Amino acid sequence: MEPTPFSLVSSIAANPLTAHQFRAEVDPEWTIGGKPNGGYLLAMMGRAAAAVGQHQHVIAASAHYLSSPDPGPVNLEAEVLRGGRSASQVRVRMEQEGRPRVEALFTTGTLDVDTKPFWEAGLPPRPVAQPDECLRIPSSSPSGLRVAIMDQVDLRIEPSTLGFANGAPSGRGELRGWLALPAGEAFDPTSLLYAVDAFPPATFEIELTGWVPTLELTVYVRALPAPGPVQVLQRAQLIDAQRVDEACYVWDSTGRLVAHGTQLAGIRLG
Amino acid sequence: MEPTPFSLVSSIAANPLTAHQFRAEVDPEWTIGGKPNGGYLLAMMGRAAAAVGQHQHVIAASAHYLSSPDPGPVNLEAEVLRGGRSASQVRVRMEQEGRPRVEALFTTGTLDVDTKPFWEAGLPPRPVAQPDECLRIPSSSPSGLRVAIMDQVDLRIEPSTLGFANGAPSGRGELRGWLALPAGEAFDPTSLLYAVDAFPPATFEIELTGWVPTLELTVYVRALPAPGPVQVLQRAQLIDAQRVDEACYVWDSTGRLVAHGTQLAGIRLG
Repeated sequence: MEPTPFSLVSSIAANPLTAHQFRAEVDPEWTIGGKPNGGYLLAMMGRAAAAVGQHQHVIAASAHYLSSPDPGPVNLEAEVLRGGRSASQVRVRMEQEGRPRVEALFTTGTLDVDTKPFWEAGLPPRPVAQPDECLRIPSSSPSGLRVAIMDQVDLRIEPSTLGFANGAPSGRGELRGWLALPAGEAFDPTSLLYAVDAFPPATFEIELTGWVPTLELTVYVRALPAPGPVQVLQRAQLIDAQRVDEACYVWDSTGRLVAHGTQLAGIRLG
Repeated sequence: MEPTPFSLVSSIAANPLTAHQFRAEVDPEWTIGGKPNGGYLLAMMGRAAAAVGQHQHVIAASAHYLSSPDPGPVNLEAEVLRGGRSASQVRVRMEQEGRPRVEALFTTGTLDVDTKPFWEAGLPPRPVAQPDECLRIPSSSPSGLRVAIMDQVDLRIEPSTLGFANGAPSGRGELRGWLALPAGEAFDPTSLLYAVDAFPPATFEIELTGWVPTLELTVYVRALPAPGPVQVLQRAQLIDAQRVDEACYVWDSTGRLVAHGTQLAGIRLG
């Protein structure tokens, strides 16, 4: 079966009666162990933010995950908090069966095609391995969990950061690789919200655990991405009191840093 | 004049008629060029989140800054989005003169005194300079702006990262130093929300500019801090399209990483 384009599985439909309510359908294939990917949900919510605000691109997104929705219909409600000249702020809530599932705040603006980085010396080094040197992650996982989403996207990881796949994590807490959307669809600021949460937990390269549920995810979109796959660096910083934070960096096919983010997640370690 | 304790200047008063509304007073001394520090505002909002939720400690906070309030009274409105066994999620809005100023989401939980880090190899190295090797930042700044807050807190920066004070930024976009609250008041999870935004922009060590307004600030509180001053590392990652992101790390006096965060801000460079 052909994978469905990201623009379709993350699409939202406006409620004809109100300007700020939307319906969406969480796709059963964009899941890990039956639960939807958090960045995928954030992308749907980002579409609602861009639809109601005065600016088309999400610049900053912060989501708190309350209770994972199941695949199927969800309702989105968006409220413009402030509409400014250069930026707008929008709040979006995702509900399912009358219960709030994800709440997120967005700052939207306009990303200009003609900008270039002024200073980037504080970024981590961009990984060097090319896609054909990386291994595609299958939907079957070492833990037995079905990671259905891996049959939709093409996610490849450098063999040197894939120790966990052979039961021998490197201990470095870092994953490097590439991500392509179904049918090679080009990334845009909305799908970059997914890209920042697409990789497996970098903690797998410390110790393999079960589900690492995201509590909070913040994404900054820094530039319009060029067509083609994106390069991803995902790394853990600290595991303390059964919580871990991870930083994620996303470069486009021209080597420009286009998005990055951080997340705090629960983990059964420590 | 003696500085006022942080617990007092960030205190909130419950509205006797409703359980979820609060009043607070933005102190004119906790300002930079007359505008309140964003982390200070977030700490007030964190108090409201902890007051209405079922858990006393902020674990994760994400704020979007709409329009800076002036010193004086502000209203806070908190809504519990979900109250769980181990964590709650709360939304807080700060208003002044009927206009929303800051909107923030919080995940609250309980930080246990008995935990210790399980893995911390992904953190940047903790700075080595002691407080007496660092220079206290005065309230008068090179740009002529009065940074009143520096007469309240004791904020010291390593001379090796203070090039900007002599008109010679190092170009590394990094500041290292120490922070103490007025009268040596101990830090807690609420005041750590301020600590993550206390330092001057790390971009001063790239190129000195005017006001660098925060658009979004995310803070993760990782552990209960020991008494005493905290050690801070603030660094810029990327300046692109007149926006910069900065990461900030805060260690307590025993050398434990207790809070960290990221922010996206506007900047007149690039």
